[in-house]
Amino acid sequence: MVVTHKKLSSSSVEEISNQQIDILNAVDDAFGGVIVEMKEPMNSNVFDTLLRVSISCWREQGKKGIWLKLPIELANLVEAAVKQGFWYHHAEPTYLMLAYWIPETAHTLPANASHTVGIGAFIMNKKREILVVQENNGRFKGLGLWKLPTGTVDVGEDIVEAAIREVKEETGIKVEFMELLAVRQSHNVSFGKSDLFFVFMLRPLSFDIQKQDSEIAAATWMPFEEYAAQSYMQKNEHFNYIAKICAAKIDNDYTGFCALPATAVSSRRRKSCLYFNNHGGVVVPNTI
Amino acid sequence: MVVTHKKLSSSSVEEISNQQIDILNAVDDAFGGVIVEMKEPMNSNVFDTLLRVSISCWREQGKKGIWLKLPIELANLVEAAVKQGFWYHHAEPTYLMLAYWIPETAHTLPANASHTVGIGAFIMNKKREILVVQENNGRFKGLGLWKLPTGTVDVGEDIVEAAIREVKEETGIKVEFMELLAVRQSHNVSFGKSDLFFVFMLRPLSFDIQKQDSEIAAATWMPFEEYAAQSYMQKNEHFNYIAKICAAKIDNDYTGFCALPATAVSSRRRKSCLYFNNHGGVVVPNTI
Repeated sequence: MVVTHKKLSSSSVEEISNQQIDILNAVDDAFGGVIVEMKEPMNSNVFDTLLRVSISCWREQGKKGIWLKLPIELANLVEAAVKQGFWYHHAEPTYLMLAYWIPETAHTLPANASHTVGIGAFIMNKKREILVVQENNGRFKGLGLWKLPTGTVDVGEDIVEAAIREVKEETGIKVEFMELLAVRQSHNVSFGKSDLFFVFMLRPLSFDIQKQDSEIAAATWMPFEEYAAQSYMQKNEHFNYIAKICAAKIDNDYTGFCALPATAVSSRRRKSCLYFNNHGGVVVPNTI
Repeated sequence: MVVTHKKLSSSSVEEISNQQIDILNAVDDAFGGVIVEMKEPMNSNVFDTLLRVSISCWREQGKKGIWLKLPIELANLVEAAVKQGFWYHHAEPTYLMLAYWIPETAHTLPANASHTVGIGAFIMNKKREILVVQENNGRFKGLGLWKLPTGTVDVGEDIVEAAIREVKEETGIKVEFMELLAVRQSHNVSFGKSDLFFVFMLRPLSFDIQKQDSEIAAATWMPFEEYAAQSYMQKNEHFNYIAKICAAKIDNDYTGFCALPATAVSSRRRKSCLYFNNHGGVVVPNTI
């Protein structure tokens, strides 16, 4: 939908509706609202008028929420939407999603993503040595602290896959899933968002370390006791407990969660994965 | 910083720098970058010039990332920033955060929040009846399906507190934490983001149901076997496994994760909570 650049008078609404374009293209959502995804360039005055007419129309139709997706190339349209009462819902590098609520009641639109997600990897070889790294960046830079490989889970990425990927990237070691040992939730981590951190035990499938130079200052196999005895591990309550959990696991005195991939029965057939304690096969006979 | 509205000529850069304002107010971040938080209204042409001068200055200083936080009231400045190469990092209802990377290398700025987080609550009274609801909205509306109370975790909210809050809101029942039974990760749930869903066992502290009318069509205590026998529970793989986990828990044949709140030793002293299997007190003698 390309509209030529021209200055619109106050009679423009009628003018436009007498042309081909009545209101903005929209599709219904499943909750009584509409979704507008702008794609083509548009003059902001033209957009302002079209949006005003469109909202009136959707109000008459009894619509509730309006989603307005503006690609970053159409940043010139943001101000007009905000002036008409839209607020920012979320943004990704390539677009901004704005929202508007027509009814008088409080809106029931779903919240934006609230958490970043990270992983830590506990990997032991047959000599009771564990894979540890020192980082080039971040809060542990230059402290000489040996720590478990960690990393960030991408959108759409399984937490286990993220752990396997991060270990490979940072150390060159191939690993496979054994168990989810623990989960930690923290708050106010990045931009006020909360964070969920999953600690996995992974089985090494290779042993020759090829460290990544950009993020990792050093990587080695280290006796578990030496790792756990670092003074920082004693001072940090959660590092300390995670080391105790790993120690219990080494002694066969700990059961974490297994992973069971499944496809939820829904119209979208999303892939998902369930983590739970399957000790003794009490829930399901065979799990990975 | 208020700058009066005027049309700037190409000599405006010098003009401005001869006034009090040299570059935009910025504070250094911990990663060699700067953070600009705009607060006062500004004409977009003035902002455009100031931003251009500021970027040149930060480039000379060897700065890396630039964070630009624009409150929604300053939506008039978005277009100018985008035209100078900023991209959208994230947005919340009241502001838009844009980012810019000065070095020639790929940027190393942290990712935006990637996951929504939800909870499910398994609550049983002494008659082996569990607390179940039917919902007014969403995919289970009108299906007659009795399900565990569920809800969304807010930013900054502990997952356990979210479970306690949601049960109280939906059913009026007061509960306390017993155990984290299972975790599920799903993808492409809201706006392409992933979702983490935590299933808790909670102990009821009250028993008279006061259901919330807006979200809940019906709420009741129901024999567990009746809940688990619903045909939908058999068809949905994960619902089925979660019911099996709950059944095992009822038979004292299942150990989930306990919750251990702690304060991480860091400059920010963030509150956090660690979830792990403390069966037999193997990791820590006393946990909630």
